[in-house]
Amino acid sequence: MVNPFDLNEAITDIERGSRDLHERANRVISIGGDHTIALPLLRAMAAKHGPISVVHFDAHLDTFDTYFGASYTHGTPFRRASEEGLIDREGSMHIGIRGPLYTDQDLDQDTDLGFEIFSSIEFDDIGVKGAIEKIAARVENRPMYVSIDIDVLDPAHAPGTGTPEAGGLTSRELLAVIRSFSERNLIGADVVEVAPVYDHAQITGIAAAHVIYELLSAM
Amino acid sequence: MVNPFDLNEAITDIERGSRDLHERANRVISIGGDHTIALPLLRAMAAKHGPISVVHFDAHLDTFDTYFGASYTHGTPFRRASEEGLIDREGSMHIGIRGPLYTDQDLDQDTDLGFEIFSSIEFDDIGVKGAIEKIAARVENRPMYVSIDIDVLDPAHAPGTGTPEAGGLTSRELLAVIRSFSERNLIGADVVEVAPVYDHAQITGIAAAHVIYELLSAM
Amino acid sequence: MVNPFDLNEAITDIERGSRDLHERANRVISIGGDHTIALPLLRAMAAKHGPISVVHFDAHLDTFDTYFGASYTHGTPFRRASEEGLIDREGSMHIGIRGPLYTDQDLDQDTDLGFEIFSSIEFDDIGVKGAIEKIAARVENRPMYVSIDIDVLDPAHAPGTGTPEAGGLTSRELLAVIRSFSERNLIGADVVEVAPVYDHAQITGIAAAHVIYELLSAM
Amino acid sequence: MVNPFDLNEAITDIERGSRDLHERANRVISIGGDHTIALPLLRAMAAKHGPISVVHFDAHLDTFDTYFGASYTHGTPFRRASEEGLIDREGSMHIGIRGPLYTDQDLDQDTDLGFEIFSSIEFDDIGVKGAIEKIAARVENRPMYVSIDIDVLDPAHAPGTGTPEAGGLTSRELLAVIRSFSERNLIGADVVEVAPVYDHAQITGIAAAHVIYELLSAM
Amino acid sequence: MVNPFDLNEAITDIERGSRDLHERANRVISIGGDHTIALPLLRAMAAKHGPISVVHFDAHLDTFDTYFGASYTHGTPFRRASEEGLIDREGSMHIGIRGPLYTDQDLDQDTDLGFEIFSSIEFDDIGVKGAIEKIAARVENRPMYVSIDIDVLDPAHAPGTGTPEAGGLTSRELLAVIRSFSERNLIGADVVEVAPVYDHAQITGIAAAHVIYELLSAM
Amino acid sequence: MVNPFDLNEAITDIERGSRDLHERANRVISIGGDHTIALPLLRAMAAKHGPISVVHFDAHLDTFDTYFGASYTHGTPFRRASEEGLIDREGSMHIGIRGPLYTDQDLDQDTDLGFEIFSSIEFDDIGVKGAIEKIAARVENRPMYVSIDIDVLDPAHAPGTGTPEAGGLTSRELLAVIRSFSERNLIGADVVEVAPVYDHAQITGIAAAHVIYELLSAM
Repeated sequence: MVNPFDLNEAITDIERGSRDLHERANRVISIGGDHTIALPLLRAMAAKHGPISVVHFDAHLDTFDTYFGASYTHGTPFRRASEEGLIDREGSMHIGIRGPLYTDQDLDQDTDLGFEIFSSIEFDDIGVKGAIEKIAARVENRPMYVSIDIDVLDPAHAPGTGTPEAGGLTSRELLAVIRSFSERNLIGADVVEVAPVYDHAQITGIAAAHVIYELLSAM
Repeated sequence: MVNPFDLNEAITDIERGSRDLHERANRVISIGGDHTIALPLLRAMAAKHGPISVVHFDAHLDTFDTYFGASYTHGTPFRRASEEGLIDREGSMHIGIRGPLYTDQDLDQDTDLGFEIFSSIEFDDIGVKGAIEKIAARVENRPMYVSIDIDVLDPAHAPGTGTPEAGGLTSRELLAVIRSFSERNLIGADVVEVAPVYDHAQITGIAAAHVIYELLSAM
Repeated sequence: MVNPFDLNEAITDIERGSRDLHERANRVISIGGDHTIALPLLRAMAAKHGPISVVHFDAHLDTFDTYFGASYTHGTPFRRASEEGLIDREGSMHIGIRGPLYTDQDLDQDTDLGFEIFSSIEFDDIGVKGAIEKIAARVENRPMYVSIDIDVLDPAHAPGTGTPEAGGLTSRELLAVIRSFSERNLIGADVVEVAPVYDHAQITGIAAAHVIYELLSAM
Repeated sequence: MVNPFDLNEAITDIERGSRDLHERANRVISIGGDHTIALPLLRAMAAKHGPISVVHFDAHLDTFDTYFGASYTHGTPFRRASEEGLIDREGSMHIGIRGPLYTDQDLDQDTDLGFEIFSSIEFDDIGVKGAIEKIAARVENRPMYVSIDIDVLDPAHAPGTGTPEAGGLTSRELLAVIRSFSERNLIGADVVEVAPVYDHAQITGIAAAHVIYELLSAM
Repeated sequence: MVNPFDLNEAITDIERGSRDLHERANRVISIGGDHTIALPLLRAMAAKHGPISVVHFDAHLDTFDTYFGASYTHGTPFRRASEEGLIDREGSMHIGIRGPLYTDQDLDQDTDLGFEIFSSIEFDDIGVKGAIEKIAARVENRPMYVSIDIDVLDPAHAPGTGTPEAGGLTSRELLAVIRSFSERNLIGADVVEVAPVYDHAQITGIAAAHVIYELLSAM
Repeated sequence: MVNPFDLNEAITDIERGSRDLHERANRVISIGGDHTIALPLLRAMAAKHGPISVVHFDAHLDTFDTYFGASYTHGTPFRRASEEGLIDREGSMHIGIRGPLYTDQDLDQDTDLGFEIFSSIEFDDIGVKGAIEKIAARVENRPMYVSIDIDVLDPAHAPGTGTPEAGGLTSRELLAVIRSFSERNLIGADVVEVAPVYDHAQITGIAAAHVIYELLSAM
């Protein structure tokens, strides 16, 4: 039995379980948890496929070096993943980024880690079609992993999450972008940070369920 | 007194009341209830005007043949209406459709019943102006009935309903489209499926009230 | 001690406090309260800068002559401000207006008071870029005061307010417009009408916090 | 497949399923549904055991003759059960009764149907111990069926139900009374009228879960 | 038309309306508003009956001299009433008092104003029967006015009010005490401080409705 | 800076801070956190006073040996405290216990650890007065530490907590018992397990605030 009070033990356990799934299936979708789980999931996937094109939907970069002094948390998975060589640095991107940064070096550092940044506010400029084209140009036909923090949606569409940020995507925009992934080589995905206790009228749960449905369809 | 536990008795009663109203008024707006009521309302209206151009806003087609084995429910009114010859098959359409289907024949069958389908996701492509033009081209100056299931809105704008689906219209888009109906020949409307017990902060009730206000103004 | 049951006494007290702040700071942001406070805030600011270009985000005009028979309320501040010569009548505007009017003279009278009206529904036509250009053309490089009634947002994005109206702006649109004010001469702002007891899942509070953050950044 | 829009068909189906269960088990607890289900459940049980001592916890008598003109509804099961000879008229009682009556004959008629009435307000007079003694004196060692409408609890303890009435039992009182049934011959029970959509903070669900746990323990 | 922003004007208007009602009816129940309204209601009643025995259910004394510097507010009505000679100082009492006091003279001053204090915590000692006897001994057969601030109930039974205090009465206790007033000479009552926006699952509204029902029955 | 992801580091840090407080004050009340904090708080207090009489209000024993395999969690503090000799085994007790146990040895083991068990259901038998006498007989005039898990209250009075159990105390009962501690030698207290995100209408927060107020008064 895993001690749920020990974060590192849980990370190891998730990686083990995920490797086991990848041996038995070609594509895996993970549901739930906080964003810490992206690291063991990417480890399991890269062990099979090599460096992967990661398309990360989130209001936040999640590429801090440490978070409250800890190296393995829900604020650091994509820095760790880049350092460990799990991601393809030519084909990865963040989508939906917004909100304040801790230091002005956050954006530069992020680019060095291999991520192109596509901010939420750009959706009003180029529309859903423009967004789909931009992702296609970055990812091309590389093996693609999609990691969706539900807080990429505006709090109106997903209040039930731990660190909501105003100014996000609508559920319609997100669903249309995911639908376009039927043209890409989608080999894995996660949907994380849904927190039912903060939710109301199940708005967030409904959005997440539709996101998962479209991911399945795109696969 | 009507037995409210008997669905067929209620349908008959609504048709009777609606016919009575149409004798005394040129235009009727019905508020509340589930979508089952569209059938007796259309019967009453077609008895006076003949087949009508039905513009149906909804996340769902509501043209099942049966729903849990029953023929007269909130999932079947527009199939029954089409079979009974109540709708104009050249001038009717569904707007806002999205979400999973039960079988892949649903869409074909729907076209045969006389409905053009205008999905929610198309709003991001052609905008409100494009939507207004598309409806005008279909309806022209036929007598038009507008049936609005509040779940045509995204759950962010209308959580208080029985079968919410992510990826819907914004209230601003819906209000703008209804406002354009002042150019059409609008003779009746309903606003249904508002469920206050699922609502929060009265978001759904406020949206529905504005929808009704714009319908009245368009008339 | 101010008697909180006496509205006029409170207005005087706010003006006094605001004048004091302006002596010590170049720019002031006020948070909270209902829209009544815009009047004493503008008095304090005009005493220092002369007539000011007021950009007022709101679902409502707030330029009634009286409201329930009273002259100084949250429905009348901008009429009083215009009458007192506090606003620049060539450079002021309302943004996000929608909803029913009490009399058809409301719009005409509003123009006479010095406000251009930019309705919510126009955002779907000209987009965020068009909105930013329209405001720039009206305000130019005049000293600008931004007054934000949180109900300018759609109830989906800000349910926690006293008089919500469907069909409003998204938080992403509002934040993008405010961000453009770094190009303007922004000398003061208020964010009002946030009512936590009507809020759910802190959606409104989160939106207001981001609005304030962007106002600070634009300054 | 049963048509869920046909109440009579559902009643028949529940009776059939319940008879099947009683063939395979000595005791049955039914969870969920509205109070209509008590009738088919009692039919199934009486078919095996003969007339049963029914101890019915509820804010309401549920012994109307008709309810909105219908004979088989959640307001009439115990009248139907008494007429059909399913209950032991010497050993049955209502507990927790309160609230307005439709006619002043309701109480008299109820006694004729074989029920002793133990009102909610008596709990403050005789306490939990007195209540337990009163039930024991009425039921003795007859085969006992316990039917619990969750609205027997005060709305503070069970807001999530369709017809809440102030002045009810506390959950502690109800649990203590049920615990005493380990001394009785408890052969069946139901817990009904829990409505999650009206609930808040899962208060009602938690109370119902504990009630079921104590029923199981008493068996 | 009364200006709702002027408290004194509203007090005068309520007294005028109440006098008018008392001319046409023998007994009057007022519903809603904050506790300020007790003063004009008592003025109207005393004008007809002379000093009245006031039985006041509340978590708070409401006998401040001033509240935020104002003399006529929801924290002061019973001091004003006593000073104006509207209450019978031998037959009045507060029931349900609890919570912190502003100064240690509050209780003494209250006794001087003519009120006996019966605290909430005493209910666990003497029970509902003891409470009923205590009230009867104080009021005897004087004309009695019952003023019920819904916050006399515990927040579990009435969360929807402006100044809730833990440790209050249950709704069952309150209803039983009111029921006993059929033995008293009850000539008027009010039920105040119900605030729906703070309520959940309508718990408070349901309790208030039952309280009013029992008041009507007792009359 | 303490790493909040490391439970043991946090326990050490709380003990250090608590020792510091006890050097400067005779009595300490801790607010918030989960029940894990009772252990470092008791260590700090016993370092100054020796073994202490612990009166622990809770729906649960919190004397597991391990919880999900971990030894230092919110389910184990009082076993650790007893093993470390921090509590007086002749003068300690649990109050409000109810709900299912994991094994039938839980109760026996608990007695061995030095706790008398006073279950919630006994309150209906002996009342508040009986409860106060029972505690006094156990604690006598030993130095007493009071640890209050807010889930000792019924979910009706405290829904906002992580592991609510039906059948608990009312807030009035709890407040009356705490008030009696002015007769005891109360040297420290904590109020824990208040979880605002599960709360509604601030019911739980209000109850906790009153509990703290009475603790302060009793000191």
